[in-house]
Amino acid sequence: MTQLERAKNKKITTEMKRVAGDEGLTPEYIRSCIAEGTVVIPVNIKHHRRNKLRIIGIGKGLRTKVNANIGSSPDRVNIMEEKNKLDAAIKAGANSVMDLSTGGDIEKIRKMVLQRSVLPVGTVPIYQAACETARKGKKISEMSIDRIFGIIEQQAEQGVDFMTVHCGVTRRIIETLRKSKRITGIVSRGGAFLAQWIVYNNEENPLYEQFDRLLDVAYKYDVTLSLGDGLRPGSLADATDEVQIGELSVLGELAERAREKNVQVMIEGPGHVPLNQIEANVLLEKRLCKGAPFYVLGPLVTDVAPGYDHIVCAIGGAVAAASGADFLCYVTPTEHLRLPGVDDVTEGVIATRIAAHAADVAKGIKGASDWDMQISKARGSLNWKRQERFSINPEKFRQERKKSKPKDARVCTMCGEFCAMRQSDLLSKKTKF
Amino acid sequence: MTQLERAKNKKITTEMKRVAGDEGLTPEYIRSCIAEGTVVIPVNIKHHRRNKLRIIGIGKGLRTKVNANIGSSPDRVNIMEEKNKLDAAIKAGANSVMDLSTGGDIEKIRKMVLQRSVLPVGTVPIYQAACETARKGKKISEMSIDRIFGIIEQQAEQGVDFMTVHCGVTRRIIETLRKSKRITGIVSRGGAFLAQWIVYNNEENPLYEQFDRLLDVAYKYDVTLSLGDGLRPGSLADATDEVQIGELSVLGELAERAREKNVQVMIEGPGHVPLNQIEANVLLEKRLCKGAPFYVLGPLVTDVAPGYDHIVCAIGGAVAAASGADFLCYVTPTEHLRLPGVDDVTEGVIATRIAAHAADVAKGIKGASDWDMQISKARGSLNWKRQERFSINPEKFRQERKKSKPKDARVCTMCGEFCAMRQSDLLSKKTKF
Repeated sequence: MTQLERAKNKKITTEMKRVAGDEGLTPEYIRSCIAEGTVVIPVNIKHHRRNKLRIIGIGKGLRTKVNANIGSSPDRVNIMEEKNKLDAAIKAGANSVMDLSTGGDIEKIRKMVLQRSVLPVGTVPIYQAACETARKGKKISEMSIDRIFGIIEQQAEQGVDFMTVHCGVTRRIIETLRKSKRITGIVSRGGAFLAQWIVYNNEENPLYEQFDRLLDVAYKYDVTLSLGDGLRPGSLADATDEVQIGELSVLGELAERAREKNVQVMIEGPGHVPLNQIEANVLLEKRLCKGAPFYVLGPLVTDVAPGYDHIVCAIGGAVAAASGADFLCYVTPTEHLRLPGVDDVTEGVIATRIAAHAADVAKGIKGASDWDMQISKARGSLNWKRQERFSINPEKFRQERKKSKPKDARVCTMCGEFCAMRQSDLLSKKTKF
Repeated sequence: MTQLERAKNKKITTEMKRVAGDEGLTPEYIRSCIAEGTVVIPVNIKHHRRNKLRIIGIGKGLRTKVNANIGSSPDRVNIMEEKNKLDAAIKAGANSVMDLSTGGDIEKIRKMVLQRSVLPVGTVPIYQAACETARKGKKISEMSIDRIFGIIEQQAEQGVDFMTVHCGVTRRIIETLRKSKRITGIVSRGGAFLAQWIVYNNEENPLYEQFDRLLDVAYKYDVTLSLGDGLRPGSLADATDEVQIGELSVLGELAERAREKNVQVMIEGPGHVPLNQIEANVLLEKRLCKGAPFYVLGPLVTDVAPGYDHIVCAIGGAVAAASGADFLCYVTPTEHLRLPGVDDVTEGVIATRIAAHAADVAKGIKGASDWDMQISKARGSLNWKRQERFSINPEKFRQERKKSKPKDARVCTMCGEFCAMRQSDLLSKKTKF
């Protein structure tokens, strides 16, 4: 039985208890949210060492979680580097990782990630299907339906906790897309694979048409389905258009079908979205998908900053999460330029954690502002050791402070003897006014 | 006559015309906004080579502008480094710089900045007063009132375009502060200097008490006054408290007095502010200060990320500017840790420019989204040269892309042959569906 099925049966699982403990909420709250589909716990019943996993809940009233994408590409394959990227993501504080490998021995990389990761692991099975097909010298449109489902089952069997499936890329919406005046067409790899398949074969998306087949696999292993936005906007100009919203409506219907079959489900969201459209996007998702956890990539609030897209993502992610998004997929500085390396993973995770935390404070998530209080008290009393300890990346804190030593160790070189904290300190000692 | 006085007299100046041209708005619009006090053009009539300056307008309906703080501290003095920081700020696209030097020969540094900068220059004159006093072995509370005003006049005479003056730090508000339960007390250096002066001398803030004397100097040189928030919150816990809002109310009164005397004025804002309080802060400023341009430092939406405060600032700055803030002061990655170096200046300016631009798109500022359209069209057609040209930092774009070369130069190593753009490209060529 899946977490959802047990929740519906009023059963509180070990995983629900662990999530409740972690969030400082009651197990009954977690159970009721899972039952109504507003919280998911992505953990495959076959996941290797599942008791050692850092289980997470994603959804209503919980801390905003952060995912890091790792994985090879056809142009850059190095399993050691992927290992290091995984370790960097864990160290930087990601809550989950997705292995998006499309180059080299992707099965081997996935197995390494599943073995090594203490975090829940996600994948996009259509990537493997497409890679296999391409390697055989075939066209993407020649992917076999049975092989697609075979790969999904195989990955589920290996213990993958959540999977992106682009079930909403339907024939009808591809038609809408082709009539639209989009600037950047399709920017999702999975979306593009399926769109090609649909157009060349003149057939419906098998992940949509045989959605029940997909649900059967997901149910069997309690794989959480992450309904992908294969037609997400890839530029501000394409945001919140008829294509994106058309797909989202389909995902809403599918989410309900998944819940009926006791399959946990979350919804993926854009993409490139102007700052003033983010709140509406979150609201739409929550309405059309009946409060399903919203997993957003970015959103990127401008297209103009390749090299700094982790910052662009932090702006959009903070606003999205403050508006109700539950799960932020990081974007690294190298998005739009190249496959990220180890340092890019660290930068991406930290930037997105900042966004998630800022949103949690704004949303009033239990305990969120305590962290700020701790570091601020340490700052107010010029206690540098404690500031370091409570900073989001203590190693960075130490390195940066060391680069420029103050004459008086109580302050820093920004203000030196004129440190306002030191001055207010003097001030408070004079009691008469 | 100041820009404001001439605007009130229905006179359109060369500077108004230049701002109008730069913003794609009519000179009459600029004039009317200056007349009502919702736009300022900070340019001192004595600024050296004032015709070569990149004049800016700040305020209602204009692009959000970005300021970079540079300057020495008692612990780190290197005029070459300050020169390089100035050059870095200009290169990265800042719209103004403030020289906040408090170490070494600060007069010499300021003269260098005023000579070299093509951007409007701001200062905080109380720093010089405090430094001089400290160097004489005296206490800050021994600063002489005449010397404070003398320094203000001297800096105005040298051509400083805008000055931060902490006129709102009054005795009454210091009393409020001392009764308050603030976590981080005073975090503004200028605010702390004046608070000490007030408390130790048991006298009113001279910049408040002799505000007319200040206005006379500002009027004479058309120095734009930036009414500083000496009591801004230095932690989320202190945001939007009675101290901050008390000071803001005083600034609102002073802003009106400045305008009556034909002195251009803007208002400085926080500081550390939770994401969900930013909009209210902007609204309050606009109401209490009758639409005066709002110049915000950050706001920082969490206290926990020293080493990454440029990202924290980008989140807060984007939301503030989208809510109506007009002028963003950057925060560098090293805030709370050390004096920024040259690279920190670049990172700070770029992050803040991203925030400003994202907000301009959200606010619907004329022409803002054209930039995104340009790069996105280039991206959609896989034109890498044009993407580089339209990216916020072409040098960074080039460097990052070069670090990992794709097999096929049409794509990048993120997706290689599976590039969605390339796939959609194939898709659009098949016309039948």
